[in-house]
Amino acid sequence: MRPSEWFCEWPTPATAHLFRLRQMVATARTPYQQAQIVDTDAYGRMLVIDGQIQSAAADEYIYHEALVHPTMLLHPAPRRILVAGGGEGAVLREIFRHPAVEQAVMVDIDREVVALCRAHLSDWHQGSFDDPRLELVIADARGYLAETPRRFDVMIMDLCDPCEGGPARNLFTRQFYEIVRARLAPGGLAVLQAGDVGVSMSESHAVIFNTVGQVFAQPRSYRAFIPSYCTEWGFVMAARDAALGACPPDLISRRIAERRLHLRFYDAETHAAMFALSKDFRCRRARASRVLLDDSAP
Amino acid sequence: MRPSEWFCEWPTPATAHLFRLRQMVATARTPYQQAQIVDTDAYGRMLVIDGQIQSAAADEYIYHEALVHPTMLLHPAPRRILVAGGGEGAVLREIFRHPAVEQAVMVDIDREVVALCRAHLSDWHQGSFDDPRLELVIADARGYLAETPRRFDVMIMDLCDPCEGGPARNLFTRQFYEIVRARLAPGGLAVLQAGDVGVSMSESHAVIFNTVGQVFAQPRSYRAFIPSYCTEWGFVMAARDAALGACPPDLISRRIAERRLHLRFYDAETHAAMFALSKDFRCRRARASRVLLDDSAP
Amino acid sequence: MRPSEWFCEWPTPATAHLFRLRQMVATARTPYQQAQIVDTDAYGRMLVIDGQIQSAAADEYIYHEALVHPTMLLHPAPRRILVAGGGEGAVLREIFRHPAVEQAVMVDIDREVVALCRAHLSDWHQGSFDDPRLELVIADARGYLAETPRRFDVMIMDLCDPCEGGPARNLFTRQFYEIVRARLAPGGLAVLQAGDVGVSMSESHAVIFNTVGQVFAQPRSYRAFIPSYCTEWGFVMAARDAALGACPPDLISRRIAERRLHLRFYDAETHAAMFALSKDFRCRRARASRVLLDDSAP
Amino acid sequence: MRPSEWFCEWPTPATAHLFRLRQMVATARTPYQQAQIVDTDAYGRMLVIDGQIQSAAADEYIYHEALVHPTMLLHPAPRRILVAGGGEGAVLREIFRHPAVEQAVMVDIDREVVALCRAHLSDWHQGSFDDPRLELVIADARGYLAETPRRFDVMIMDLCDPCEGGPARNLFTRQFYEIVRARLAPGGLAVLQAGDVGVSMSESHAVIFNTVGQVFAQPRSYRAFIPSYCTEWGFVMAARDAALGACPPDLISRRIAERRLHLRFYDAETHAAMFALSKDFRCRRARASRVLLDDSAP
Repeated sequence: MRPSEWFCEWPTPATAHLFRLRQMVATARTPYQQAQIVDTDAYGRMLVIDGQIQSAAADEYIYHEALVHPTMLLHPAPRRILVAGGGEGAVLREIFRHPAVEQAVMVDIDREVVALCRAHLSDWHQGSFDDPRLELVIADARGYLAETPRRFDVMIMDLCDPCEGGPARNLFTRQFYEIVRARLAPGGLAVLQAGDVGVSMSESHAVIFNTVGQVFAQPRSYRAFIPSYCTEWGFVMAARDAALGACPPDLISRRIAERRLHLRFYDAETHAAMFALSKDFRCRRARASRVLLDDSAP
Repeated sequence: MRPSEWFCEWPTPATAHLFRLRQMVATARTPYQQAQIVDTDAYGRMLVIDGQIQSAAADEYIYHEALVHPTMLLHPAPRRILVAGGGEGAVLREIFRHPAVEQAVMVDIDREVVALCRAHLSDWHQGSFDDPRLELVIADARGYLAETPRRFDVMIMDLCDPCEGGPARNLFTRQFYEIVRARLAPGGLAVLQAGDVGVSMSESHAVIFNTVGQVFAQPRSYRAFIPSYCTEWGFVMAARDAALGACPPDLISRRIAERRLHLRFYDAETHAAMFALSKDFRCRRARASRVLLDDSAP
Repeated sequence: MRPSEWFCEWPTPATAHLFRLRQMVATARTPYQQAQIVDTDAYGRMLVIDGQIQSAAADEYIYHEALVHPTMLLHPAPRRILVAGGGEGAVLREIFRHPAVEQAVMVDIDREVVALCRAHLSDWHQGSFDDPRLELVIADARGYLAETPRRFDVMIMDLCDPCEGGPARNLFTRQFYEIVRARLAPGGLAVLQAGDVGVSMSESHAVIFNTVGQVFAQPRSYRAFIPSYCTEWGFVMAARDAALGACPPDLISRRIAERRLHLRFYDAETHAAMFALSKDFRCRRARASRVLLDDSAP
Repeated sequence: MRPSEWFCEWPTPATAHLFRLRQMVATARTPYQQAQIVDTDAYGRMLVIDGQIQSAAADEYIYHEALVHPTMLLHPAPRRILVAGGGEGAVLREIFRHPAVEQAVMVDIDREVVALCRAHLSDWHQGSFDDPRLELVIADARGYLAETPRRFDVMIMDLCDPCEGGPARNLFTRQFYEIVRARLAPGGLAVLQAGDVGVSMSESHAVIFNTVGQVFAQPRSYRAFIPSYCTEWGFVMAARDAALGACPPDLISRRIAERRLHLRFYDAETHAAMFALSKDFRCRRARASRVLLDDSAP
C-alpha cells in the first residue's frame, strides 16, 4: 500500500517536484506571504514560503553554511552583523559560531513567520533567538537600513526571490544596494542569496549580479547544489572598498581553525568548488545585461 | 487551461520529478530494458531507460562533456578509445572532437536502443555513428573486454546504474575493473559515470569509488550538476599506471587550445569546480566501505 | 519499475484525475480549441478538448447511448436529425442504427477536430462519416440553425460546456434554445449534454435546465455515470409541443425490439435508472435560479 | 501561486485521484490497518484507510443513507441491529433515526480506528457513540457472530473491501454469510457494502453478489454514485426468509413519513434510481461466476 500525501513544488509551469509528506505541521497566512511547515520523508522538515521550499532539515546546513561562512571568514574580525530576512534563525546560528561577533541585528518584515520558525524549527535556530547578542527588528529591511546610523562589518541578505512578487520587491534594486553599501563599515562585506542558477539559469541570478555590480566593484558569484531545491543555488558576495579577489585556501583553513568552527559542508576545498564557475554559467551570466532599478523591479 | 501530460520520474519512492510533455516520440521494450524518447517543455527531448532520465537535449552537453573531456585531455595522445554503453552516440561525438583519435570501439548490449537513438537523437550523435573511425559492437561489454586482445588509451564506461537491476549488473564489480585495467595501454586512463551524488549521496557512488580503488591506485571522484536530473552526478576517473594527481589548469587550457575544442561546459575553471569536492561529500564517501564483487553485486 | 507518463485532468483547481499513458497519438491546436488524442491504460484511447476528456474508448458507449437513444426512441419515427457538435462521429453511429433515419445533418465548427476524429477514432464513428444519409456542415451551429429553413424530428446538442470558454459560448442561452425550438418539426424532440452533475453539481447543469425551461415546457434532466469522467454526467431532454412525461418501460422495450437495436448500455431499466433523480440532485437543481441569456453568458 | 499539498488515491496502478489538502489531521498505524484523517478543499474532511477513501464530509451522507435506509425501511419494525465495521459512527447515526431501534450492536475489530473517528469525525457520528442503545464490541465480527446467541432484525456490513488484504478477509465468504443468516431474526434483512462498480466493475462486486446468492435467495444489487470516490459504489441486500422483490415507492414514502426521517439523499425516487441497474452492469455481473469460500478468499 502506497503512502499518499505529497507536497508539490512548481519551479516552473512545466516542471514539478514531489515530496512525500509525513505531516503538515503548521500554516500561516500572514500579511506578506503564506508560510507552511511540512515534514517530508526525503528531507525531513521543510519551511515553504509561497509554495517555494526555503530550507529543509536534511540539507539546510549546506545553504546556510554557504551563505554565511565565505563572507564571515573573509572578514578578519566580523563584530557587527546585519541579517535581512532569514526568519529560520539558521543564519544567526552560523553567525554566532564566529567568536568575534558582538552584535547581530536581524531585520525581518514578517513577525508571524519568525514566530512560526521559532516554534517549529528549533533544529534550525538552536536557540539563537535567545542569544544576548541578537537584536531582532520586525521591519522592512530597506526602511530600517535607510534610517539607521549603524555600520556593519558583514551584511547578509537572505531574502525571497524578487521575481516571486513577495515582500522583497525593493530589496534587489540598485538603490537598495546603495543603501547597503552605505551601511558597511570600512572593510565591510555583503553577501546575498541570488536565485536558482540551475535550470538554464533563470535570468534572475545574472540580473542580481549585474545590479550589485553597479554599486560594488567586481562582486563575485558562487553557487552550491542544494538537494532539496533540486537545483544549484546562486549567491553574490561584494566588498565595500575593493574588488574581491580569489580567497587563498590557506587563509580559509587557518581562520576555520582559529575560530574553532566545526562545519559540515564548508571548508577550503568546498570554497574552491563553489567559486569556480563552469564555462556555461559564466557565458549565460555574461549574456544578461539587465539591471534592477526601483522603478523597473522586478 | 493547463496543458496536461506529464512524464514522471521517481528517483526514490518518496520523491518524484514531473516534466510536462509535448510528445511521446518512441518506445521500445527490448530484451534488456524499456527505452522511451519523450519531448518535454522544460528540457526538450529526453531519453529515458527503465524510468530513469539518461539525457536531455537541453543539458546533455554538460553530462557528456563532463564524462569525456577531463580524461581525454589528461591523456597526451588518445588514439584508441573504448566506449561501453553510451547508446545515444553523444560520447562518440565528444570523442571524435579530439584529433588524435584513430579508432573508437563502442560496445553496447542493446541493439534496439542504439537504433532508437540513431533514429531519434540526431542532435546527440550528430552523425557519429557514420564516422569511419567507429567500430560498433553489439555485445556485453564485459564479455567483449574479457576476450579482446586490444588495448585502449582511454576507456569510457557510460553504463546504467547497477542498482537498477538492468543489464549492467556485472559492470561495476572489482572483477570487471580488473578486466578494464588489463585492457588499458600503458599510460591509459578510464572514466565511468558513477551515480547520483546529490540526495545525501546514495551509497552507490561511494561503493563504485571504493571498488575502483581496489584495482586502480587513487582514483578520483568528480561531479557535475545536471539540471534535468535535478541532482549532481558523480564520475570516477582512474589511471592504469599511477595515482591521479591534480590536473594543472594550464595543461587543460593549453590542450583545449591545441586540439581546437569548442566546448560549452568544460574548461579549466569548470574542471576545478568539478574536482573540488565539498566537505560533506568527502565525509560521506569516506564512511562507506562496501566493495562490489561479482558474487555480491549489486 | 513504474511506467511513468500520465495524462492529468483538472476538473477543479483542487482535484485532479491521472491516467497512465501508453501513447500521445495526435494533437491539434485549432482556431477554436486544443484537441488531443491519447491512449491510456485504464480507458484506452481518449479524445481530450481543452484539457477535458470528451470520450474514452472503454466507456464512450455509455455517454453516446445515453445522449442519443432516450430521445430517438421517444420519437415514433425520427427521420431528419440534427447533430450540433459531436465531432467524434459516435452520435452519428448511434443515430444511424435507427432505421427511420433518412438524413442527419451534423454541424460542427471545427474542421480540424472532425478530421482528427475521423483519422484516429474509427472505433467511435465506425464509418458514419461515409454514410450517404450524412450531411456534414462545418459552421457555427447557431448561425446555421438561425438561417436554415429545415425542420428536424430530433436535435442533439453535443457541445462543450459553456463555462470552459470554448466556442460553445452562445449555444447554451435562452435565445439559442428559441432558435432550436423553431427548427423542430411538429412532435420534435431535443436533447443536450448538460454538464457535470457529480461534484455537488456545479451550478452549470441547473442553469442549463432552467434556461431550457424558459423555452420548452417541462424539460427533463437525466444523468449517467461515466467512469472515465470520474463523475455523473447530466443531460436535458425537451419536447417542442408538450411537457415531457415519464416514458413507459414497455414503450422503450418495444421500440428497441422493433428497431432491432443491439445496445450495450441502454434499455428500459437503464432508462429508469437515468431518469430517476436522487433527492439531493433535485434539491440542488431547484436551488439554482440563474438563466443564461446572450448578454449574460456564460 | 498554487497551493501545494495533495492527497493521492490510487484506485488502480494506472489511475490516480488527487485532492488538494488543507491539513493532515491525524494518523494511526494500528495492528490491522493504516488510518488517516485529512482535510481536503474539495470534499472537506476524509477518513482514509490503507490509502483508500472511506468517507468524506461532503458526501458521506450519500454513502451512509444508501447503506442504511433501504434495508431499515424495508423492515417493518427494526428493533435489534447489528453493524459490522462502520468505525466512523455514521451508520449508527442513521440507524438511530429509526424510532423502533432498541439496540444496536456495533462490532469493529480496530479499537484505535474507532477512537480516531470518535475524536475527529464528530460530524459523522454526532454523538452516536454515546447513545444508550449502542453496545460497542471491539472484536472480530466473524468470531463474535459465530458465538453470540443473539438474533438481529437488520444486519449491516460496512467492511473494507476483501481484496485490499485488510482485516476483512474472512468477512466476504459463503461461510461468513451462513453465519450472518443464522443470526437474523425471522423477517430479518442484511445489507453490505459491495465494492466499486464503476470502472468496468472490478470483479469484486459480482463475486460478492454471487457469494451472497449461495446463502440467501435472490439478493439484490444496488449502487450509488459517491463523488469523493470518483465512482459508483455497489451494495447487496438480502432477506433471510424470502426472495427480495421490488419495493413499492409508496411503501418507502409512507415509512419515511411515519418514522419522521429527514434525509438528504434517500427517498422513493432515489430508491428507484439506485435499484434500477443499467444493462451493462447486469451483463458484467452475470459474466462473473466466482464464489468466495473460506479457503479461496479473497
